[in-house]
Amino acid sequence: MDNKLVLGIDIGGTNTVFGLCDYNGSISYEDSVVTKDFETPDLLVKEIHKKLSEANLIDNIIGIGIGAPNGNYFSGTIEFAPNLKWKGVIPLSNLFHSVFNVPVELTNDANAAAIGESLYGCAQGEKDFVTITLGTGLGSGVVVNDNMIYGHDGFAGEYGHIRVIPNGRACGCGRNGCLETYVSATGVVRSIDELNSTHRLNSSLLNIYNPTAVDVFTEAEKGDQFAMEIVDFTANILGDALADFACFSSPKLYVLFGGIAQNGEPFKEKVKAKMESSILNIYKNKIEVKISTLHDKNAAVLGAASLVWKTII
Amino acid sequence: MDNKLVLGIDIGGTNTVFGLCDYNGSISYEDSVVTKDFETPDLLVKEIHKKLSEANLIDNIIGIGIGAPNGNYFSGTIEFAPNLKWKGVIPLSNLFHSVFNVPVELTNDANAAAIGESLYGCAQGEKDFVTITLGTGLGSGVVVNDNMIYGHDGFAGEYGHIRVIPNGRACGCGRNGCLETYVSATGVVRSIDELNSTHRLNSSLLNIYNPTAVDVFTEAEKGDQFAMEIVDFTANILGDALADFACFSSPKLYVLFGGIAQNGEPFKEKVKAKMESSILNIYKNKIEVKISTLHDKNAAVLGAASLVWKTII
Repeated sequence: MDNKLVLGIDIGGTNTVFGLCDYNGSISYEDSVVTKDFETPDLLVKEIHKKLSEANLIDNIIGIGIGAPNGNYFSGTIEFAPNLKWKGVIPLSNLFHSVFNVPVELTNDANAAAIGESLYGCAQGEKDFVTITLGTGLGSGVVVNDNMIYGHDGFAGEYGHIRVIPNGRACGCGRNGCLETYVSATGVVRSIDELNSTHRLNSSLLNIYNPTAVDVFTEAEKGDQFAMEIVDFTANILGDALADFACFSSPKLYVLFGGIAQNGEPFKEKVKAKMESSILNIYKNKIEVKISTLHDKNAAVLGAASLVWKTII
Repeated sequence: MDNKLVLGIDIGGTNTVFGLCDYNGSISYEDSVVTKDFETPDLLVKEIHKKLSEANLIDNIIGIGIGAPNGNYFSGTIEFAPNLKWKGVIPLSNLFHSVFNVPVELTNDANAAAIGESLYGCAQGEKDFVTITLGTGLGSGVVVNDNMIYGHDGFAGEYGHIRVIPNGRACGCGRNGCLETYVSATGVVRSIDELNSTHRLNSSLLNIYNPTAVDVFTEAEKGDQFAMEIVDFTANILGDALADFACFSSPKLYVLFGGIAQNGEPFKEKVKAKMESSILNIYKNKIEVKISTLHDKNAAVLGAASLVWKTII
C-alpha cells in the first residue's frame, strides 16, 4: 500500500486543514483554507479537489476521512453544527464522493482523534479507552472492545455535555453545569472571572489583556497563585468527572488531547490524582491517563485519515 | 432445539433462584434455595445438581447462565460481592462447569436482565438500549450496536455509582451522592426521613411501621402528598440522570426493571418527562422509556438463561 494515500480533512469553524497520509501515518502534503470563505460546502469540496489536482496528487487517493463538528458517522452528514456557516443537515460525504469518486468516512472530530490515537498514538493496542479533546469545548471519543461507540444515531460520546454541577455555569447548549463550561479553553477563561479567590487581586492575569487558557497555564507554571488555583479547579472537576465516567465503559486508558492537555504532565497528574481519590473501588488503580502523542499540527488530519485506514488495516 | 434447556441461575444475597428455560423463553422448572445456607459456593453447586438429578432433569441441559452480584463476564467469577457470605474472588463458572460439564456464562444481574430483555422482553430487535434495574440498589446493563458493554475488566455499566448530587447522601461504596442513594428501594426509604416537606407531618407514611418503597408508591397512588413528593423527587433525579447518560451511549431505549419500576406507568411518565425537559437537544424526542415486560418472578432466571441462548440463537 506504499503508494496509496488517504486524504484526511479536519473541518473547523475557522480553518479546514487537509493532507495526504500513508498507512504509516506519515503526512506527505498539507494545506488549509478558511472555512467561512465558502458560502456552500460544495464550493469547499471543489476547492480542495482543485488544489490537489494542480499538485498532481489525485491519483493515489484511495479514500477520504473527514473529522467535522457534529459529524454523523452513519449518515456522513454534518448536522446543525453551531460553529459553521452551513446550516441544517449537510451531506458532506456524498459531496466529496461525487467529486473524488472514492470511499468517504466522516465522524466528529473527537471520534477521529480517538481512532487516530489507536492507530498512530498512545492508544496503540488498547481496546478500551476514551479520548477527551480539550479545545474550545470538550469532546470525547469512546472505544469499547476495539469498537468506536456511535450509539443508535451516531451521536454517542458527548461527555462535554454531561452536567457535573447542578445549576452550574450556563452552557451554549441552553443547559447549565455541563462539563465543558468548566473544562475547556473557554471554561478556563470563564474561571478567571468566576472563581472566588483571595489571590485574584495580586494575580498577573489581571495585567494581561483578554487572557487565554494558555496564559492561565503559563502564569500557573511561573507560580501565580490565582492561576494555580484555576488549574487545580479545572483538573479537579475533570478528575471527578473521569472517575464517574468510568462507570459507563470501564476503560483502561483516558487520553487527553488538545489545547489544555498540551500543558502536559503537571495538569495530567492532578487530573489522575483527583480521579483516583474519588473513583469507585472496583476501578481503582486500573485506569491510565496519558497525554496524546498526536500533539502537533497534523493531529487532526491524521485522525481524520485514520478513519479510512482503520477500515483497511 | 426443542428438547434442549438452559439452566438459568439468579444468585441473590437472600435467595438463589434457578430454573430450566427453553429457547422460546418458557420456564419448565423452577426452584430456589437460601443463599446464605451454603458456607462455601461449591456446596450450593452440589445442591442444585442434586435437586435437578432427583427430578431427572440433568440430561437436557446444554448450558448454564448465571446472573450474580459483582459477576464478571470475562473471568466467570464473583468478585468481592458485599451482600454475599463468600468473600474475595469466587470462580463460580468453573465450579458449575466441573459439576455439570456444560458451558457456563456468568455476568452481573443487570447485564443478565438486559440480555433477557433483548431476547424475550420489550427490547427485542433493539440494538442500542440500556436496562436500569431498580432493586435494593441501582444496576445497569448497556447494549450498544447489539453488544453488551463489558469494558476492559468486565465491570462497565455501573450507573448506580455515578454521583449526581455533589456531597450528597452517603453511599455504601464509601462515596457520596451516587444515583442509587436516591433512586432505588433503599433510596426511596431514605427519602422518607431525609426529604424536607411541609406535608410530612400529615403523611400516612408516618403511621406505617418501617415503611418500604412499595408503601411510598402505594400511598402516593392514594393521594398522600408527602408520598407523592417522594415519588416526584425520585423520578426527577432518575430523569435528569438518564438525560445525561444519553451522552454516553446515545441509546434508543431505556428499560426500567424491578421493584420501583413495577409501580408502572405514572412513575415512568414522570421519569420520561423530566428526561426530555433536561436532555441535550440532539437527543430530544429520540429515546423511549419502557417498563420491562419481564416483570414476574421468573425474570431473573430468564435473564440468566438468556446469556447462553444469546450465544446460540
